Amino acid sequence: MDLEVVTIGTELLLGHTIDTNAAYLARALAAVGARVTRKTSVPDTPAAIRDVVGSALARTGFVVTTGGLGPTRDDLTRQAIAELYGVPLLLDEPYLERLQARWRRLGRPGSMPEANRTQAQYPAGATVLANPRGSAPGLWLEGVLGVVVMLPGVPHELQGLTDEALVPRLAQRAPDAGVTRSVTLRTTGIPESQLADLVGPLEETLAPATLAYLPTFDGVDLRLTAWQMPAGEAAVALARARDRLLAVVADRCYGEGGTDLATVVLERARAAGARLAVAESCTGGLVAARLTAIPGASAVFAGGVVAYENAVKVSELGVPERTIQTEGAVSEAVVRAMAAGAQRRFGADAAIAVTGIAGPEGGTAEKPVGTVWLCAAWGASQQAVRIGFPGDRAEVRGRAAQTALDLMRRILPAPPAAAGR
Amino acid sequence: MDLEVVTIGTELLLGHTIDTNAAYLARALAAVGARVTRKTSVPDTPAAIRDVVGSALARTGFVVTTGGLGPTRDDLTRQAIAELYGVPLLLDEPYLERLQARWRRLGRPGSMPEANRTQAQYPAGATVLANPRGSAPGLWLEGVLGVVVMLPGVPHELQGLTDEALVPRLAQRAPDAGVTRSVTLRTTGIPESQLADLVGPLEETLAPATLAYLPTFDGVDLRLTAWQMPAGEAAVALARARDRLLAVVADRCYGEGGTDLATVVLERARAAGARLAVAESCTGGLVAARLTAIPGASAVFAGGVVAYENAVKVSELGVPERTIQTEGAVSEAVVRAMAAGAQRRFGADAAIAVTGIAGPEGGTAEKPVGTVWLCAAWGASQQAVRIGFPGDRAEVRGRAAQTALDLMRRILPAPPAAAGR
Repeated sequence: MDLEVVTIGTELLLGHTIDTNAAYLARALAAVGARVTRKTSVPDTPAAIRDVVGSALARTGFVVTTGGLGPTRDDLTRQAIAELYGVPLLLDEPYLERLQARWRRLGRPGSMPEANRTQAQYPAGATVLANPRGSAPGLWLEGVLGVVVMLPGVPHELQGLTDEALVPRLAQRAPDAGVTRSVTLRTTGIPESQLADLVGPLEETLAPATLAYLPTFDGVDLRLTAWQMPAGEAAVALARARDRLLAVVADRCYGEGGTDLATVVLERARAAGARLAVAESCTGGLVAARLTAIPGASAVFAGGVVAYENAVKVSELGVPERTIQTEGAVSEAVVRAMAAGAQRRFGADAAIAVTGIAGPEGGTAEKPVGTVWLCAAWGASQQAVRIGFPGDRAEVRGRAAQTALDLMRRILPAPPAAAGR
Repeated sequence: MDLEVVTIGTELLLGHTIDTNAAYLARALAAVGARVTRKTSVPDTPAAIRDVVGSALARTGFVVTTGGLGPTRDDLTRQAIAELYGVPLLLDEPYLERLQARWRRLGRPGSMPEANRTQAQYPAGATVLANPRGSAPGLWLEGVLGVVVMLPGVPHELQGLTDEALVPRLAQRAPDAGVTRSVTLRTTGIPESQLADLVGPLEETLAPATLAYLPTFDGVDLRLTAWQMPAGEAAVALARARDRLLAVVADRCYGEGGTDLATVVLERARAAGARLAVAESCTGGLVAARLTAIPGASAVFAGGVVAYENAVKVSELGVPERTIQTEGAVSEAVVRAMAAGAQRRFGADAAIAVTGIAGPEGGTAEKPVGTVWLCAAWGASQQAVRIGFPGDRAEVRGRAAQTALDLMRRILPAPPAAAGR
C-alpha cells in the first residue's frame, strides 16, 4: 500500500531541527510493505495542515502525521484534522485521569496545567493509541476521506508508537501485503559516472530489484531495492541482483549494508595475523581515528604517529632529512619511508602512511592542493599511489583517509570466504 | 518572500538518508528574509517532480529543488522541470569542456563517460550556476510559472551553491525585506539543565531576541534569534542579548557562531608562543584530527602519538611500565606521564593526553565504560581530570576529545582581547 507522511512543526521549516522522524517511519513502514510516496513538512497552521493532509488523502487515502500534539498553543494537529473530517473534538475522561496521575507520579508541583487537557482530546470517531513514553497519545482516525494516523513529534515517542501501534495495525490490515527490502553494496575509489558505465548495461537485468547510486565523500553506495513483494521473492530477487552487481564492481566493493571500511581492514589484518600501525601527515590522525572507532581495534592496531612537522617525520619515523629536502615532504620517497618507519617503530607487520597538501594553503603548480601520496606496507611489500583529490580541506583529508584504508585493504589478503570483495 | 523547497530522491522516502539539505537551505534563506512555507520530498519520478513543483509554484511562485542532477539515469530533475516549463534541454558546450578538463585534472583514466554529458544539459532559458565542488551545476530557471532553482543534492555542493549563488541572487531581488538573524554562543562542559538554571531568570530580558538551547555531544549551543526586522534593529537586539548571556555563562562559552573549539585552542597556543603535541589512547587520533582539521594548524601543532597499546605508551611516551601495572592504563599517574612524555618527545611547550575506556568492552566496577582521564600540560604546570562520560563508544570518544581540547583552552592564557571567554 502507498501512503504519505506529513511532518508538522514550524521549527522544521526554519531549519533548526533536522527531521529524523520521517526516515524512521519510512524504514518501519517499508518492513510491512507500506511505501511512503511523498513526505511534506508544514508549519503549525491549521489551514496548511488541512490543505496538505487533504491533498495527501486524495492521492493515497492514508496519511501519517507527526508533531503538533503537544500541550502548547502552537500544537494544532488534532484540531485541524477534526475540522478536515468535519467532526467535533471530544474529551477522553479516562485518559485525562491517566494524565493527571502521571503528573503526580513524576512529582511535578501543583495540579496539571489546563493546557495539558488538550492532550486528552480526540476527533470524534478516532481510536486513542496509548503512549507510555509521554503525555500525547497517538490518534487513528478513519473516515470517508481515508485514514489519518497522528503521532507525536518527540522522536522516541514516535518510534515507540510506530513499533507498538502503527506497524502491528498495518500488518493486520494487509496481512498478505508484500515487503520492501534493500541491500546496499559499498564501493570506493571509482567515480559515480564510471560506475554507471560499468553497471548501466546491467541495470535492466536486475529487475524486479531497482538500483540507486548514493554518492558520499567515501565512495558510492549501490542500493538495490525489491518493492512490495512477498518476503521470500524479495530475498531471491535481491540475492540474484546482488550477485550480478558484484560480478562487475568486483573488488571496488568492500562490504554490504553499513559496513565501515575500517572494519574490513581490521578483519583482514586479524585474519592475516598482522599488527597494524599508521604514520599520518595531512590526515593528522583521521586514519587512526577511523580504525580506533571500531570496537575491538586494540586486537590489531598498535598505534600511530601524527608526523605533522617535517622534523617529526625525521625524528619519529626515520625519514631521511635529505629526502625531504630533495623530493619534498609530499613525495613517493617520503611516504614510503614513513610507512617503513611506522612498521619499524611499532614493530608492526603492516602500516599505512599519508602525506599531502590538504589546503587551502601550500599548493604549487606541480603539487596543487589536494595532492596526496599514500602508501600501504605489508611485510616487505609496499604499494604507493599519488592522487589528486577534489574538494576543500575536510574533503581532501576525509577522502585521503578512506583511500589509505582501501589501499591497506587491497594489500592484505582477502579472507577465503569473501574472495573477490 | 515565501518559497517552497522540494527535495528529490527516492532514498529520501525509503528512510535511508536523513535530509539535512532542507535545514541548511531554510537557515540560509531566513538570513535574507525568505521564508520556507512548505517542504516536500518526492521520489526520482518525473511525474511526481512535475506535480509537486507545479503546485508549489502555483502557491508561491518560487521553488528551490535539491537532488536529481547527477550523471545517472535516475537523475531526472532537469528533464522533469524542462517538461513542466515546456522548454527543450540544451547542451552547454563550454561547461561540457570544463567537465572534461576536470576529469583529466583529477587524473581519472580514459575519457569522460557519456553519462556525465547530461550534467552539461540545461532547460532552455536557464542560467547555469557554476559548482566548483562537483560536476553538477545549479540551474536557475525563470518563466511564466515563476522561478525554479535546481541545486545538487550532495550536501557540501548544495551548501556552496546556496551561499555563493542562491543567497546573493535572492538578496539582490529583495533588498529591503526584513531579516531573520541569529547569534550562537557555544558552551561546553556544562549540562543543559544546569545552563537553564543559570540562564532561565534572564530569558525575558533578552526580548525581542528569542533563545533556543541546542544540545549536541560537544556541548550546548545557545541560539539567539531576532525575527524579520530591519537589519540594524536586529543587530542591536542581538548584541544586547548576547552581552547579557555572556555575563552569566562566562568561561563556559568558548566562542560564537560556528567556531570550533580546536580553533580557539590553536589561537591561544599561537598567542602564547606555544607548540602543541598530543598523546592519545582511547580517542585514538581524534584530538589530533580535530586540531589538524583547522587550516594553518601547522604553525602550532607539532604532532602526536596514538599510544593505543600499553607497550607503545611505554616505548613512545616513556610511561613507566610499573605505573601501568600498579595504577592501570586508565589512571591519573599514566595520563600525567603521557602528557609529559609528549612534551618531551616533540619538544613541545604544551601537550594534551587522554586515556580511557571507550567501550563496549573493558569496563570494571571501579572504572566503568566511559571512564576517561584527561590531562593538559603547559610548561611545568599540569591539570588532570577524571570524567565518566555517558553514551556509546563514539559518544565517549567524541566527548573526551572535546573535553581534552577544553582543558587545554583553560590552561593556556586567554588572549587579552577575549578575556572572560
